[in-house]
Amino acid sequence: MPYVNIKLTGGSEAPSTEQKAELIAGVTELLARVLNKNPATTVVVIDEIDMDNYGLGGKSITEVRKGK
Amino acid sequence: MPYVNIKLTGGSEAPSTEQKAELIAGVTELLARVLNKNPATTVVVIDEIDMDNYGLGGKSITEVRKGK
Amino acid sequence: MPYVNIKLTGGSEAPSTEQKAELIAGVTELLARVLNKNPATTVVVIDEIDMDNYGLGGKSITEVRKGK
Amino acid sequence: MPYVNIKLTGGSEAPSTEQKAELIAGVTELLARVLNKNPATTVVVIDEIDMDNYGLGGKSITEVRKGK
Amino acid sequence: MPYVNIKLTGGSEAPSTEQKAELIAGVTELLARVLNKNPATTVVVIDEIDMDNYGLGGKSITEVRKGK
Amino acid sequence: MPYVNIKLTGGSEAPSTEQKAELIAGVTELLARVLNKNPATTVVVIDEIDMDNYGLGGKSITEVRKGK
Repeated sequence: MPYVNIKLTGGSEAPSTEQKAELIAGVTELLARVLNKNPATTVVVIDEIDMDNYGLGGKSITEVRKGK
Repeated sequence: MPYVNIKLTGGSEAPSTEQKAELIAGVTELLARVLNKNPATTVVVIDEIDMDNYGLGGKSITEVRKGK
Repeated sequence: MPYVNIKLTGGSEAPSTEQKAELIAGVTELLARVLNKNPATTVVVIDEIDMDNYGLGGKSITEVRKGK
Repeated sequence: MPYVNIKLTGGSEAPSTEQKAELIAGVTELLARVLNKNPATTVVVIDEIDMDNYGLGGKSITEVRKGK
Repeated sequence: MPYVNIKLTGGSEAPSTEQKAELIAGVTELLARVLNKNPATTVVVIDEIDMDNYGLGGKSITEVRKGK
Repeated sequence: MPYVNIKLTGGSEAPSTEQKAELIAGVTELLARVLNKNPATTVVVIDEIDMDNYGLGGKSITEVRKGK
């Protein structure tokens, strides 16, 4: 029953459907392998965040990508 | 002042406006009844998650719904 | 497969084990009733937050309770 | 390496790009000033929530704004 | 700069320090491999939740483990 | 009614009560100043995370601090 939330940039950096499936499978497998957690009730939520809404180093990722 | 976050699938499974209002009212009432929490400052946030971004059992809900 | 997170004050205001069980049952029932969500995979997490770490109105709840 | 998540109403109440940049800069600066946290690895995520999905006082903000 | 939050049961089911290090390394590697995300700014937070505070199927994990 | 969650390291790096009060006041003031949000219903939650449970760069902060 673990719950995993992954937040990453969306928009032009959004993962594809295949990549999201790979993240869901990979995290669920990791929890099963390391901690023997039951995959059947492992919940994973991926949040794709607009680059204007994601900040690192005091700037939005939009600004970071411009090299501002 | 409790804070409640509800994450559920959106898209074709998204709740209606009426259902969301019912969730907000119901959770707020539950916290007031069980714990005597003040409804006036109880905050509820409902996140509707794309079915590609919601994983259960190591698969996205998109895949789960297809019976993959 | 909904996920619900409830944050409320702990310490001297912490809910009892019975009250927490009542919240878990109540929220799960609400999601089943309103949205027909499967209780078997509904995950609820209650976070009890230290009153020094919970802010409302720009003050910690510790200060709010003192009537500061 | 602090992580900050800000949830506020979107739609007609959504902050502008400039306001979001100001929030990111302001929160990062606050953590650096008060706790000497390294801005370079401070992550900020702003979630703009639909007014139907944001509840206060047992009602959605949509209803609150109508004065219901 | 992705942010990952993992919530799982603590107390008698808490992961060891080594297992937590393995989760942190594993999730960070997964995001680098699948999405080419920079490990240097990937943040992972593991929350160990008291079994009374973690609900599945409408019951706390404490009750679930008792086979109630 | 914004909701702000701040996650940072606890243990030997935990902020003092005064520093937490300063964070709560500062974030609430920032939201009022930039977005005219009502301080009375602004909720702030600070989570102090064990250094073994906080990862950056694929390592726990415990390991990072040792210069591993």
